Amino acid sequence: MSDKKWETRVTNVAPNMIMLRGYPIDDLMGKVSYAEAFYLTLMGELPEPSHKKVLDAILVSSLDHGVTPPSANAAMTVASTGSPLNAAIAAGVLAISRFHGGAIEGCMKVLTEAVRSAEAEGQTLVEAAVALVAQYKEAKKRIPGFGHRYPTNDPRTARLFEIAKEEGVCGQYVNMALAIEKSLHEVSGKRLPINVDGAIAALLCEMQIDTLMANAFFIASRLPGLVAHIVEEIKTQKPMRRIITADAEYTGHKRRCLG
Amino acid sequence: MSDKKWETRVTNVAPNMIMLRGYPIDDLMGKVSYAEAFYLTLMGELPEPSHKKVLDAILVSSLDHGVTPPSANAAMTVASTGSPLNAAIAAGVLAISRFHGGAIEGCMKVLTEAVRSAEAEGQTLVEAAVALVAQYKEAKKRIPGFGHRYPTNDPRTARLFEIAKEEGVCGQYVNMALAIEKSLHEVSGKRLPINVDGAIAALLCEMQIDTLMANAFFIASRLPGLVAHIVEEIKTQKPMRRIITADAEYTGHKRRCLG
Amino acid sequence: MSDKKWETRVTNVAPNMIMLRGYPIDDLMGKVSYAEAFYLTLMGELPEPSHKKVLDAILVSSLDHGVTPPSANAAMTVASTGSPLNAAIAAGVLAISRFHGGAIEGCMKVLTEAVRSAEAEGQTLVEAAVALVAQYKEAKKRIPGFGHRYPTNDPRTARLFEIAKEEGVCGQYVNMALAIEKSLHEVSGKRLPINVDGAIAALLCEMQIDTLMANAFFIASRLPGLVAHIVEEIKTQKPMRRIITADAEYTGHKRRCLG
Amino acid sequence: MSDKKWETRVTNVAPNMIMLRGYPIDDLMGKVSYAEAFYLTLMGELPEPSHKKVLDAILVSSLDHGVTPPSANAAMTVASTGSPLNAAIAAGVLAISRFHGGAIEGCMKVLTEAVRSAEAEGQTLVEAAVALVAQYKEAKKRIPGFGHRYPTNDPRTARLFEIAKEEGVCGQYVNMALAIEKSLHEVSGKRLPINVDGAIAALLCEMQIDTLMANAFFIASRLPGLVAHIVEEIKTQKPMRRIITADAEYTGHKRRCLG
Repeated sequence: MSDKKWETRVTNVAPNMIMLRGYPIDDLMGKVSYAEAFYLTLMGELPEPSHKKVLDAILVSSLDHGVTPPSANAAMTVASTGSPLNAAIAAGVLAISRFHGGAIEGCMKVLTEAVRSAEAEGQTLVEAAVALVAQYKEAKKRIPGFGHRYPTNDPRTARLFEIAKEEGVCGQYVNMALAIEKSLHEVSGKRLPINVDGAIAALLCEMQIDTLMANAFFIASRLPGLVAHIVEEIKTQKPMRRIITADAEYTGHKRRCLG
Repeated sequence: MSDKKWETRVTNVAPNMIMLRGYPIDDLMGKVSYAEAFYLTLMGELPEPSHKKVLDAILVSSLDHGVTPPSANAAMTVASTGSPLNAAIAAGVLAISRFHGGAIEGCMKVLTEAVRSAEAEGQTLVEAAVALVAQYKEAKKRIPGFGHRYPTNDPRTARLFEIAKEEGVCGQYVNMALAIEKSLHEVSGKRLPINVDGAIAALLCEMQIDTLMANAFFIASRLPGLVAHIVEEIKTQKPMRRIITADAEYTGHKRRCLG
Repeated sequence: MSDKKWETRVTNVAPNMIMLRGYPIDDLMGKVSYAEAFYLTLMGELPEPSHKKVLDAILVSSLDHGVTPPSANAAMTVASTGSPLNAAIAAGVLAISRFHGGAIEGCMKVLTEAVRSAEAEGQTLVEAAVALVAQYKEAKKRIPGFGHRYPTNDPRTARLFEIAKEEGVCGQYVNMALAIEKSLHEVSGKRLPINVDGAIAALLCEMQIDTLMANAFFIASRLPGLVAHIVEEIKTQKPMRRIITADAEYTGHKRRCLG
Repeated sequence: MSDKKWETRVTNVAPNMIMLRGYPIDDLMGKVSYAEAFYLTLMGELPEPSHKKVLDAILVSSLDHGVTPPSANAAMTVASTGSPLNAAIAAGVLAISRFHGGAIEGCMKVLTEAVRSAEAEGQTLVEAAVALVAQYKEAKKRIPGFGHRYPTNDPRTARLFEIAKEEGVCGQYVNMALAIEKSLHEVSGKRLPINVDGAIAALLCEMQIDTLMANAFFIASRLPGLVAHIVEEIKTQKPMRRIITADAEYTGHKRRCLG
């Protein structure tokens, strides 16, 4: 390879053939789901069969959260000025950052470090969790992925862990998250449950996803929601209106169950 | 509803409950795929069962095209400056526009208008296609979704139509696309086959997707590819290098088949 | 020049020398203002001396408009999520589009076409303006650059024209804008005065700025405002708050006069 | 002020009046330059008269650096796909980050901390500089704002300091930068001169600009360059070409001097 050459391992484009991580894309079509393809593209190998359902559940978990999150707000605001769909999506993606979606990456770092530290120190997961909680308490810092903005019980966390358990994906990272949750309760007396970001973080760790990629899962999951709000803004509202999210009223479909 | 209230039909967020288009998200998790959830979020209803596999195939069809497309280039360039993942993704999304991915929307408009015109004029699809091709020829314009940049035979087009046929999704829009392809050949003597953008366009029309949403399907499909190139750039290259895509060499997995 | 070579006329970078449009940048520093340099970079030549003050006035005219414009809103929203300054600016820029700032480009097209048409048809500017107003009235379209969102008298319009008159920059495009304003009043009975976008448009036409570049002047002018709102958000507010612009209260410096 | 109210100190918009930091914008027009207005908007007060020329020189110093910087590359790439001007500018801005333009902010932090530390420790500036250089040497880290990517002598650094000296703006931060430059030479034997980013950093410190705003000055300065490359791309190149910056040939105006 000459000096100027540089390497890429993602896709080989040849005449009449596009091979992603070695697989012709037309071979993948009809045989793997988007969730599996997402994992393959990022990680280089198809996910284990047990991971398939968990990946879909993660990508479905954060589809949308109404009009108030900053990503929806930024996307609608840009759409309202007549910018094209991709520009409005880009603005929404720019708002998926440290304080919005970023707890997934933060929590993955905490869990990875805690599990590594338990191994290095010869501690049980519980001992490592107790030490970690004490350390954060002293530093007066919150552990990302635990506790809710509002005192709610997010049903998505339980559902994620239920699916992961059924599929046999729960391991040391999920156990570490549960140990931290328990220790937080004991130390503070308050319930600071694993939230949906924390649950996603634990499962991404179980599937050996790189921390660097964490935000991509939230962005992919929220993308449909951004598009729905952008399209709704364009089709039902006047350009350049002041978007006061507190005045939004849900007038969509009533609660319903899957057939 | 007071004067200031405005309506949204996407998501109802209530204590302990997030209902997307009426379905609690935790009910959707584990039961619907990302592709189905994508359709639900955009369209308000779950796709017909026959559309499921077609939607996944569309979202898989454009996962990546190597390092040369503008979206990959813009994303890698921004990542190379130390910007966070979401900013690099946003730059990539800004490059998915009229001349890159935009043929899907362009072709959807052509097919929608051609089918509408055939009905209005009492023409057969073939008659309408012949008239349309003549009209574009006179205006010296290309019909979006037909012909390739390089003289290749994109295997993804055939695969998309194969899956759609198996699932019974082919109807008047696919037939119109085929009629235009045939007429283009007869009029020009050259092969200007339906390309992958054109095939996606025809199938999105069959599934009654709004033209306004076309680009969202390409963006969702390409998102994993953007992330893979961004992560590769960050992990294997020095910051601020000059990215000459012509010097990239594929050193990834050899061609392989699905188990 | 080989086949692969392509041409650029903006900047020549050589060892120990950066020449912008032929001028070493270190020669420009201390001798030309940013406004002159802005014009030079875009147009290839320094502005005529009489244009200098008008360019500065244009770049100052749209510095900021409080917290309510979509660009400020998008910028603050993205900043609120912990994204870096450049990402928040980018989101703000994405909102400077067709319905926000875009009237400058729209009005430049109208004035350019109207002046061209007057010449081609041998009409006076007034005759051409009357014809144009009649044409827009029949099409029930608004002429961009005329009328305000609220019934106000924007003092910036008068000030721009005053400076332009002093500097001798007013010509056929300003006269055409005035003729259209007069004709709009006569036809509709309502006052639809040239607004600040229209005044900027007329002066950019007088200085032979390409319509394609119109939005760059608004973006440059608004950039300081975006930065001020982003910095204020970061320094004085909690992350991830809901930004309700209607609840903003101005608590800054009282009205004051330039020394 | 009610509970929901929040404060902004940037702009007061009232009927027929837009007051920026207390000054009616129409009063500023024709009386202050863009550079002064930039400072006023960010800082809340007009710059001291001696700062005026320095601000303009800073904003002119980084106007453009040809087609190779990531910001130009990202902007041209996005423009090449048919995206509008503001989207291409946004992509360019997203590339002005840690490794491209970010040395200004990095160097401001170093200089601020070094001056603060000298005061706190009762050291001379030279003593503090020597300590700082030793500390960076031990940590094997580069000090941002010193040294060039290529062994050149950037004439903009000397020019910036020359103007600053004439205007009496050089103080302890400039002196600290010079002391660090000297110490770096003594310790390493190599010349690692203050580069243009370092010179801008020292002068922004002298003018009490907040570190948080550093990148805004580079972005404002580079904005005209981004626009020029975007417009050139749109007007002279085919859409979706592969932009190989190494093949660019400067064919613009020959070197010339200011009248």
